[in-house]
Amino acid sequence: MNALRNDAPARTRMLEHYGQVRAATLHRASPLSEEDQAVQSMPEASPTKWHLGHTTWFAEKFVLQPFAAAYRAVDRRYDAIFNSYYDALGARVARADRGLLSRPSLAEVLDYRRIVDEAVLALLDEVSDARWPALERALILALNHEEQHQELMLTDILHAFSRHPQLPAYGPAPRPYLAEEAAPMRWIGHAGGLATIGRRASGTSFAFDNESPPHKVYLQPFAVAHRLVTCGEFADFVADGGYEEPRHWLADGWRVVQSEGWKHPLYWIPRDDPRIEPAGHDWHVFGWSGAQPMQPSAPVTNVSFYEADAYARWRGSRLPTEFEWEAASSLRGMQQLIGYAWQWTRSSYDPYPGFRPWSGLAAEYNGKFMSGQMVLRGSSAATPLGHARPSYRNYFPPAARWQFAGIRLARVA
Amino acid sequence: MNALRNDAPARTRMLEHYGQVRAATLHRASPLSEEDQAVQSMPEASPTKWHLGHTTWFAEKFVLQPFAAAYRAVDRRYDAIFNSYYDALGARVARADRGLLSRPSLAEVLDYRRIVDEAVLALLDEVSDARWPALERALILALNHEEQHQELMLTDILHAFSRHPQLPAYGPAPRPYLAEEAAPMRWIGHAGGLATIGRRASGTSFAFDNESPPHKVYLQPFAVAHRLVTCGEFADFVADGGYEEPRHWLADGWRVVQSEGWKHPLYWIPRDDPRIEPAGHDWHVFGWSGAQPMQPSAPVTNVSFYEADAYARWRGSRLPTEFEWEAASSLRGMQQLIGYAWQWTRSSYDPYPGFRPWSGLAAEYNGKFMSGQMVLRGSSAATPLGHARPSYRNYFPPAARWQFAGIRLARVA
Amino acid sequence: MNALRNDAPARTRMLEHYGQVRAATLHRASPLSEEDQAVQSMPEASPTKWHLGHTTWFAEKFVLQPFAAAYRAVDRRYDAIFNSYYDALGARVARADRGLLSRPSLAEVLDYRRIVDEAVLALLDEVSDARWPALERALILALNHEEQHQELMLTDILHAFSRHPQLPAYGPAPRPYLAEEAAPMRWIGHAGGLATIGRRASGTSFAFDNESPPHKVYLQPFAVAHRLVTCGEFADFVADGGYEEPRHWLADGWRVVQSEGWKHPLYWIPRDDPRIEPAGHDWHVFGWSGAQPMQPSAPVTNVSFYEADAYARWRGSRLPTEFEWEAASSLRGMQQLIGYAWQWTRSSYDPYPGFRPWSGLAAEYNGKFMSGQMVLRGSSAATPLGHARPSYRNYFPPAARWQFAGIRLARVA
Amino acid sequence: MNALRNDAPARTRMLEHYGQVRAATLHRASPLSEEDQAVQSMPEASPTKWHLGHTTWFAEKFVLQPFAAAYRAVDRRYDAIFNSYYDALGARVARADRGLLSRPSLAEVLDYRRIVDEAVLALLDEVSDARWPALERALILALNHEEQHQELMLTDILHAFSRHPQLPAYGPAPRPYLAEEAAPMRWIGHAGGLATIGRRASGTSFAFDNESPPHKVYLQPFAVAHRLVTCGEFADFVADGGYEEPRHWLADGWRVVQSEGWKHPLYWIPRDDPRIEPAGHDWHVFGWSGAQPMQPSAPVTNVSFYEADAYARWRGSRLPTEFEWEAASSLRGMQQLIGYAWQWTRSSYDPYPGFRPWSGLAAEYNGKFMSGQMVLRGSSAATPLGHARPSYRNYFPPAARWQFAGIRLARVA
Repeated sequence: MNALRNDAPARTRMLEHYGQVRAATLHRASPLSEEDQAVQSMPEASPTKWHLGHTTWFAEKFVLQPFAAAYRAVDRRYDAIFNSYYDALGARVARADRGLLSRPSLAEVLDYRRIVDEAVLALLDEVSDARWPALERALILALNHEEQHQELMLTDILHAFSRHPQLPAYGPAPRPYLAEEAAPMRWIGHAGGLATIGRRASGTSFAFDNESPPHKVYLQPFAVAHRLVTCGEFADFVADGGYEEPRHWLADGWRVVQSEGWKHPLYWIPRDDPRIEPAGHDWHVFGWSGAQPMQPSAPVTNVSFYEADAYARWRGSRLPTEFEWEAASSLRGMQQLIGYAWQWTRSSYDPYPGFRPWSGLAAEYNGKFMSGQMVLRGSSAATPLGHARPSYRNYFPPAARWQFAGIRLARVA
Repeated sequence: MNALRNDAPARTRMLEHYGQVRAATLHRASPLSEEDQAVQSMPEASPTKWHLGHTTWFAEKFVLQPFAAAYRAVDRRYDAIFNSYYDALGARVARADRGLLSRPSLAEVLDYRRIVDEAVLALLDEVSDARWPALERALILALNHEEQHQELMLTDILHAFSRHPQLPAYGPAPRPYLAEEAAPMRWIGHAGGLATIGRRASGTSFAFDNESPPHKVYLQPFAVAHRLVTCGEFADFVADGGYEEPRHWLADGWRVVQSEGWKHPLYWIPRDDPRIEPAGHDWHVFGWSGAQPMQPSAPVTNVSFYEADAYARWRGSRLPTEFEWEAASSLRGMQQLIGYAWQWTRSSYDPYPGFRPWSGLAAEYNGKFMSGQMVLRGSSAATPLGHARPSYRNYFPPAARWQFAGIRLARVA
Repeated sequence: MNALRNDAPARTRMLEHYGQVRAATLHRASPLSEEDQAVQSMPEASPTKWHLGHTTWFAEKFVLQPFAAAYRAVDRRYDAIFNSYYDALGARVARADRGLLSRPSLAEVLDYRRIVDEAVLALLDEVSDARWPALERALILALNHEEQHQELMLTDILHAFSRHPQLPAYGPAPRPYLAEEAAPMRWIGHAGGLATIGRRASGTSFAFDNESPPHKVYLQPFAVAHRLVTCGEFADFVADGGYEEPRHWLADGWRVVQSEGWKHPLYWIPRDDPRIEPAGHDWHVFGWSGAQPMQPSAPVTNVSFYEADAYARWRGSRLPTEFEWEAASSLRGMQQLIGYAWQWTRSSYDPYPGFRPWSGLAAEYNGKFMSGQMVLRGSSAATPLGHARPSYRNYFPPAARWQFAGIRLARVA
Repeated sequence: MNALRNDAPARTRMLEHYGQVRAATLHRASPLSEEDQAVQSMPEASPTKWHLGHTTWFAEKFVLQPFAAAYRAVDRRYDAIFNSYYDALGARVARADRGLLSRPSLAEVLDYRRIVDEAVLALLDEVSDARWPALERALILALNHEEQHQELMLTDILHAFSRHPQLPAYGPAPRPYLAEEAAPMRWIGHAGGLATIGRRASGTSFAFDNESPPHKVYLQPFAVAHRLVTCGEFADFVADGGYEEPRHWLADGWRVVQSEGWKHPLYWIPRDDPRIEPAGHDWHVFGWSGAQPMQPSAPVTNVSFYEADAYARWRGSRLPTEFEWEAASSLRGMQQLIGYAWQWTRSSYDPYPGFRPWSGLAAEYNGKFMSGQMVLRGSSAATPLGHARPSYRNYFPPAARWQFAGIRLARVA
């Protein structure tokens, strides 16, 4: 790094940050065998190896090709293999077919990562001052993108293992829940009125395009729960016949409950399941450490929006909107906002007023998914530290259950 | 009617109104044979006869059974047949199976209507002053419900006829489009700021529960088109390859375009279709009068939300939110708000802040459908006159095309 | 009829026979309302009205158009509507969409029948002696074809009514089962050796192309049951857990048992079904007279090949091959061969050695269906009298249950 | 091996044979990486690793557990993982989910093979003379079973690779086709009459239960082609519009042609496919050596029964029955019976007269699949040498295309 450059400290920081994020990705893959890393258990979940390749391909397309004139693609055929959903970048393997990709091998994918990383690090040193700001933006996007896949790697492999008859353990949970007891739930009130939502206007830190533009929203007075709904509380809903009573459910949700035979959260295992040792526990919960007795005080996770909504209705409550969530996030006493479970909101994933997708390739990043999904706020135990922020908008279809999504309640103040 | 009662005029008005609405339903069925009235062409569309029975059953359940103590159900088996989706009212014939209901016959359904109508009219005369206000509310709901089915009768039979190889004509269109030319599209600006949305707080007139509570919304400045997108304008999108280019589309929409093979609006018929006479017209459009040459100045209809959204993006524009639509609806110069085509908005069908479903049976009326649907505003040529209002929220899934839904554009001011 | 013609008696006999068969078709439709006649309950089952039209269209295509030069089609659009599966005769309404055909009306279809009948009767009088033999063959085919549809009319409407929540009765059963008791089952032996199978070589009477050519088959010694399996006997299989034990079933059959949730023959109704009056009977059976208490001595019907095969295996027995059935049919003591229930055989529907489809339009009659189906022999209570013969080969897919098919057992001698 | 035993030579031969067959299985897996061996490309095709485990589990269940009292299962959980379809042996991973089995690892499966092999070899030495004959029978079954999976390993991995965008090569073809030219097709006549079909009654060599009992069949005179249909000949059918003309096809076949969009045999690649280098060849064919220019003289393979039947009809010919095939197989001049391609017959897979499944666990081996499938005779380039025999009955559903199945024509003599 040429220390005479004005932006040398920024380049150095980026160099370190890039190395840390890329290493963290490999660290998440490290407990898994070559074969584990190749499994795809449903169209929505990708193999670990594919995540490793896709994030690398993303750096190639969004960083190296625009900025490193001399860079030559490692293998042109990777475009068809590691493109996720960018129509502008050509034909690609169907999402449901990623489990068929025994080639390239994991070793070849790791080589691919090394070559791209070296090229990125060289580029950091060589790029002109004039192009540095644009490169910095591209790198920040690539690393935020990679962090999103770090989370998906953990949720996807957990789904794959949940389909295996032996319920194998991935390894230590990324952020285990340790509290013995949950405090009684408290309501925290908000007076309503105009609130500013979205990316911090003054901030220089990164935000996705879907968090913009910042804008005012008028809120009615409301209150939100100071903590998330626990497994023990959700077990009461199950025990009360919650999954058998249509009046708790949205019509679409009730249809899914019936067609899929849902009786409890995705990874809960009832006591008579032959895959667990006979024991005194009513429920086990499958997670990164395998099937473990349910912790009543831990936040319930791996529920769909439909289940979150039904639970709230059963409790005489409701879910917060994404605007209420964001406005309340700075209130005193709020707990478990970050690092426990994504929190389903009662907001459909619609564009903010004045929303414009990024230009160029990144135009397809978020905007084209703004239909049929619900917004989640916060972050989960699988989210890399520092990735999320109060204005962060995660989104999944209302029936999705393999993400670490939980429930925070709200009500009219 | 006992003229000494204080509310006699209200009762008289209701008596007349009830008769008119019920007669209008039969009038819409009148061009159709017994056999036409029994056809079901897809799970979402019901036979005419079923609509006739269901609206009658609704009056029985929501008006007679609560208020007419001596009333005995015409046939207890009708509960399973004419219940649409009320879980609280027990098991019922699956929605997709309504075309199997050759019994009761149309004649029996018409008898059913007569018996219920007579009982309602008798009830109007007999009910005590004390119970009159509650009865009046129930009747108003029943008649608004019946008007919704009047619209569905026309859209459902049109779908059935569109599947028939002869493309039969229903009869005269309910409200034919006559204008020869469309004025050039003008933008009408709105300054933004706080707007009040929803049921008029002071009003005594009817509104559905999903229009409540009225509440403030903060709007950015915006502009909306003074009229709807025409068939001729939409044909330009088709001719420009609009259905072949993924970048115009939401990801979900593009998936449907491909899986369903969409190439144009639902009822458009290209010139080489063997079902139409060879002619100089590029497009015919199927409607209540059969297949007719496309009127370039008429509003395009029978497009899905996905098509409306893609068209707007292709035009460098967007759809209005439901709040923008409602706020703009009172602006000077706005045209084609009511009676042409429902207008897809860029708003998912979420509950208003503080929304509470009605109590009792009517709790299932609207609230449980608040997921996976988009809001439409305005009303269509099939909507009974007087049924809609600016705060009215219609809703359909984003891929639905058999409704008379069209496009109004919006943009940042 | 010109009595001077040599073939005048044959023409007269045909004239009478034609009238009888055509009238019998209408007679079978007579208990049904216009609406009943329009219902289609699954792709494989057609509306009564469609059967009325299709058989008429068949006469138009196979009799009038080749032989009556001056005949003009009643409505050219009927070709697309009433063509069943003749690719050589052009595009047609999909089989699953026949329930959408509210047009032509029943009245128009009856007119169509009358016009075609008059033209056929005129043709019978006018055709030259030279063309008479060919015309006679065409008429015989048309009438045998019509008789096949007479049976389907009854089985198809029964399926439709079985899906109706009221389980309506069609009317009197075509041939009610009256015996109070079934004789104990007896085995009737056959010594094996060479047997001649297929159309009687010397006969002049009609047979379908799939019964030709007659040919020799070598049989091992075997024995067949003198009568069909009764409802009472089949109830023992049900009570013994027959539908829960995979070892009784072919692998394909077991898959269907599980995916469809089969627990008993198609039209059996267990005692706790809310559609029947609470009663002392373990089983009701739905039939043309509605739901009636099961007759233990009556032959079990409406079972699939899979159920027939599983029952036989459970009994330590097997089904006869179609060749064994045909060879045994002339043995003394054989009962219930004709007029009770079609009898599933252990023979796939393959062509006879030297089989050639008919020429011309009739080429598509039978041959193209020779895959994926099983042969049934005999005839059922719904089969018109005189329609079947020992060499007759009926065929349905192994999972089909809406036909009146039952079980005759066989074993090694 | 105790040389004093009378059956010592037989034991020694078995020891050698067992080692050879088991080694041949591993040899077929050897060109494949760990990741390749884990891929499952459709429910019907299993991962290589699963085949390695399943054949080992088969030896455990059918050889060790009945005969080696002291043997303890390597891992009880393998029962759920490596059981293919034996209902008598308990619950198991669904066939479509075998691609999820990243555990046990390939290394563990290879260990499993070693442990079982050692136990079998020890058993060969230790078993008493009294039990030897039964053990020998069990081993012969296990090895014939393993040879069947050797073939499936090659056809299954080829299917997986055909789905990969790079069309990777497996390695050298097991038995490459070398002939430059195909001789003109000759008809070889058979006089008909009684023929004996099935397992050689006098033979001591192995046959599957479905080849028994041997029995007489009466044949009409017929002729069969002396060789298989070539790729060049089949290309004429394609060029003549064979896949676009319903009259060549069975009705079921035509439905599949349309729903699946078939236009040529499974592994044929047209010249404009981007996955092959632009070249002067009309067709490439994908095989174990990757995509290669079509060899016109090579037998066409990877066609379904429907395509074989349609081709034969287009040629004015037909397919032989399995009985004709077997009777003709000993005629002079017949070529390509063994080792080129399985040969679809016009015979459904029905049981032979007097067929009885094996007893015990092996009862589920063949008999329960006798529905919905067609018989193939001969053997293919993927079949281990020595595995097949003239009475061998292979069987697949009529739409299956991933097997190496081709076409031999027949006709009336």
